[in-house]
Order: sequence, then structure tokens, then C-alpha cells
Amino acid sequence: MSEIITSAQNPKVRNLLLLQQKARERRKQNLIVVEGLRELGIAVENRFRPVELFICPEISGDADLAAIAGNARITRVSRTVFEKMAYREGSDGCIALLEPRWLKLNEVKLRANPLIIILEAVEKPGNLGAVLRTADAARADAVIVCDPLTDIYNPNVIRSGIGCVFSNQVVACTSEEAQQWLKKNGIRTYAAELQASSGYHLHDFRKATAFVMGTEADGLTPKWIDFCDERIIIPMLGSIDSLNVSVSTAVLVFEAMRQRGFRID
Amino acid sequence: MSEIITSAQNPKVRNLLLLQQKARERRKQNLIVVEGLRELGIAVENRFRPVELFICPEISGDADLAAIAGNARITRVSRTVFEKMAYREGSDGCIALLEPRWLKLNEVKLRANPLIIILEAVEKPGNLGAVLRTADAARADAVIVCDPLTDIYNPNVIRSGIGCVFSNQVVACTSEEAQQWLKKNGIRTYAAELQASSGYHLHDFRKATAFVMGTEADGLTPKWIDFCDERIIIPMLGSIDSLNVSVSTAVLVFEAMRQRGFRID
Repeated sequence: MSEIITSAQNPKVRNLLLLQQKARERRKQNLIVVEGLRELGIAVENRFRPVELFICPEISGDADLAAIAGNARITRVSRTVFEKMAYREGSDGCIALLEPRWLKLNEVKLRANPLIIILEAVEKPGNLGAVLRTADAARADAVIVCDPLTDIYNPNVIRSGIGCVFSNQVVACTSEEAQQWLKKNGIRTYAAELQASSGYHLHDFRKATAFVMGTEADGLTPKWIDFCDERIIIPMLGSIDSLNVSVSTAVLVFEAMRQRGFRID
Repeated sequence: MSEIITSAQNPKVRNLLLLQQKARERRKQNLIVVEGLRELGIAVENRFRPVELFICPEISGDADLAAIAGNARITRVSRTVFEKMAYREGSDGCIALLEPRWLKLNEVKLRANPLIIILEAVEKPGNLGAVLRTADAARADAVIVCDPLTDIYNPNVIRSGIGCVFSNQVVACTSEEAQQWLKKNGIRTYAAELQASSGYHLHDFRKATAFVMGTEADGLTPKWIDFCDERIIIPMLGSIDSLNVSVSTAVLVFEAMRQRGFRID
């Protein structure tokens, strides 16, 4: 059996922490950090392969990690070291380094009448994570993050999205690229917009549909509002004039799913 | 003009920080901390009265604070001190201490065919805040937090809910109290439950309706599943078996609003 790392100063441990903290390092080394059995399970199901798997045997116990490990290097660490490495509590005693996938628009596979979520420059990893869970649940065809302010492989996106960054087709690109692709594919675009006068529930979302959502702070910019075929609003009857972006995305996506009878064609 | 506080060791400043951090202190002193013009505006609109208003003139500039201040004591602080006090960035240079309101179930005012959100022991302040925004937007009649694990006046609830803890009727109570009240008021209860077989979109939510939502980690406990009239599920077609709790609440609440034609009777 291999040695067990007991020092947080170990270069492997320090590198993992660096990868967790810095989007730039993740890009440079082409490695991302994924922790927890559920998240790793979804990654492996979707053909992401761990390069290195850190295990804390004291926490993981008898959990069967063979399916997750594949051909990954296995490195064992002490509980103290693991607790320094783990981004959250209760992550099952396993953390892996994986190669990310930087999906391009022309690689996205679309079904008939696709359902697409476009996020213009979402800021908060927790919001992106919640949108990815919604997209997974609705089997949306793709989530496209334009001009991203947050890395799609930020540890908090992976955690709050419970690994749905792996089960969805997620693309990070510019707004211009996304707009060209939407046109080319004949997808009807709906700008979620606070000044719109047309209630979302009055539209038919059964054909090829993309919902375009703005940032948490400022909503959509004119470059998207002007581009979209329709401007829609979720009627709000109270004191505030906006919803959490993951909430408004879900209201629109599940209305589309309701209209489609929760069927995937 | 009064003096300006320039030391973070000032007892008033230290007490405010204590109130921000400790639910116990908020209960003991019967004071909560609210920052930002928008949040304070919603509080004042809803007849919460600031007891003391801390202003950083260098940040607040010429903002008209008279309507918010009312009869509150005004205390001026330097920028350095304000930045130590502020829970978030961009909070407009004003932070107030307010008396909270601990609404009781028998004080809740109900319209005809009320729409109620019940949260069993929600854990994350950010999720409670997002639910409160949804409740405000839908003009839900009440949000009832049972056996709460988070204080409804946690600064992060106020912040992520943009002050909607003030615009909604929010009650914290035990599950038993809530169940008695629901029965007494003849409100039909729907448990959002992952093992349920009945899709939410197949139900009629136009009469008196309460959606009952479980915790982020474990869903609803048997005491609520057994109590409810119906068990409903949001169909999920992907890899994961649950949505963010603020997302699933919004999907149900806005389906009810859609069925009701976004009218408040």
C-alpha cells in the first residue's frame, strides 16, 4: 500500500488548493477539482476521467471507489490534510483532479425543438450551479454562458450544481458567437426583461426555444434585448422588481416543460 | 452637527457587529440590523421603524434619508468604520437598527383562496432569501418557517431577500402549530416530495393552497408527508433527483399564479 500524506505542505496538496482557488491555474494546468461521490459519479457517467484521486480512508471507509477511480493515480491523505483540502463538509473522503471539457458551440448536439438557456455574464457561482440543476432536471439541450464572469468549473459551481456541469452541455463563449449560433439553428429567443410587457405564460415554448437571462445586478444588456425575437416578463405583484436569476430561469424552463408535457422528443 | 465615529472600537459599532453575528443577541436586545437604501425602504414602507441610523456621509452623499430616518437617532461614522460595519459592498452608506416583528400565526391576515409557503427547517439564509423574493413577487399570503434552523432576520436573509422579509407576512413557529393553523383555515396542503408520483402540473391550485417544502439536505420529514393532503413532484428527467429549494418553491408558486391568471382576489 502506498504512503499516506500527512502534511498540508506536500506539493500535491498545495497544488490542489491552488487549482481550487484560481481559475487561471485551472486553465493553465487544464485540471479541475471535484469532490464528493455524487459529483464524481455524475462526472464519470458523463465520460470525464479522474487523473488523480485523493482519498482519506478514515472518511471514505468501505465506499467502492473503483468505478470512479478508473485508471487514476490514487493518493491517500490523512484526515487532517483532507479537511484542509475539502471545499465543503461531508464530501465522502474523496477529491479528484479531472481534465475539464471546453465544449464549443459547433459541438453541441441538439434534439428536435431544443430548449436552450442563455446566461449573459452570470456572476455568482451559486446561481450558475442552481441553473445547471434546473437544466439537468429539465434535460435542457444546452446552457450557454456568455462573456462569463465566473469560471464554469469554479468549485462552488460544481458543488451548488451537484455535478450538473458534467451532465449538461455547457458552453462558455462570447455573446456574438452565441447569437450567430442561435440564428443558424433557427432557435426562437426570449429575453427575460423587467421592462417587457408580455407575460411569459402567454407564449408557446413548444418549438425551438432559448431563454436569455441577464446578470443578477443589471439584467440584460441592449445587445441581447435588441437581438431577441420576444421580450417576456414574469409578472411581479409585490414590492420588488426582480427575482433571483436561478429562480426566474426555473420558472420559464418549467413552463416550457409543462407545455411540452414533460416529454423529451 | 454631531460628532463622527472614527473608531471601530466604539461601543455602538461593536454592538452592531455583535447583532449582525449573533441571532441570540438579536433576540435578547430585540434589535436587528438592516443595511442598504432598498432594504430599509421596504422595511419602512411596511411600518418597521429604525431605532438608530448609522450614516457614512462620504458614501451616502446627498441621498435623502429623512423618510427612512423618521425619529431614529442618527449616528455618523467614517468610511473606515462603515466598511467594517457593512455586511456587503455597495450598501449606500446607511445601516440601521430596527425592532423586529415576531408575527404569530393568529395574526396572519388571509385573503380569499390564500397561497401559503411552508418551509420545514430551511437551513441556508440565501435560500430563505430567494424564497422570500418569490413570495413577494407572487404576493403569497404568508411564508411559514417551521422549526427554523436559520433566524429569519439573519443579515444574509435580509440581503439575499432584498428586504422581502419585511414585505411578506413571515412566521417562525413549530410544525405542530403550523399544522393546526392550516387545518383550522381549511387550506389544502401539498407536500413537495421526491417519492411522490403525481406531477405538480396536474393539480388545481386556485383554491386555498399551501406548498410544503423540505430541507435542502433531507427533504420533508414524515410528520409533514403524512399530514399533507397531496404529495406532488416536479418531474425531473436528468441525472439528479432534486432541485434547489428556492427553485422548486418558485416553480410551484408560479404555476399556482399562472392558473390564477396572476390576479390577487
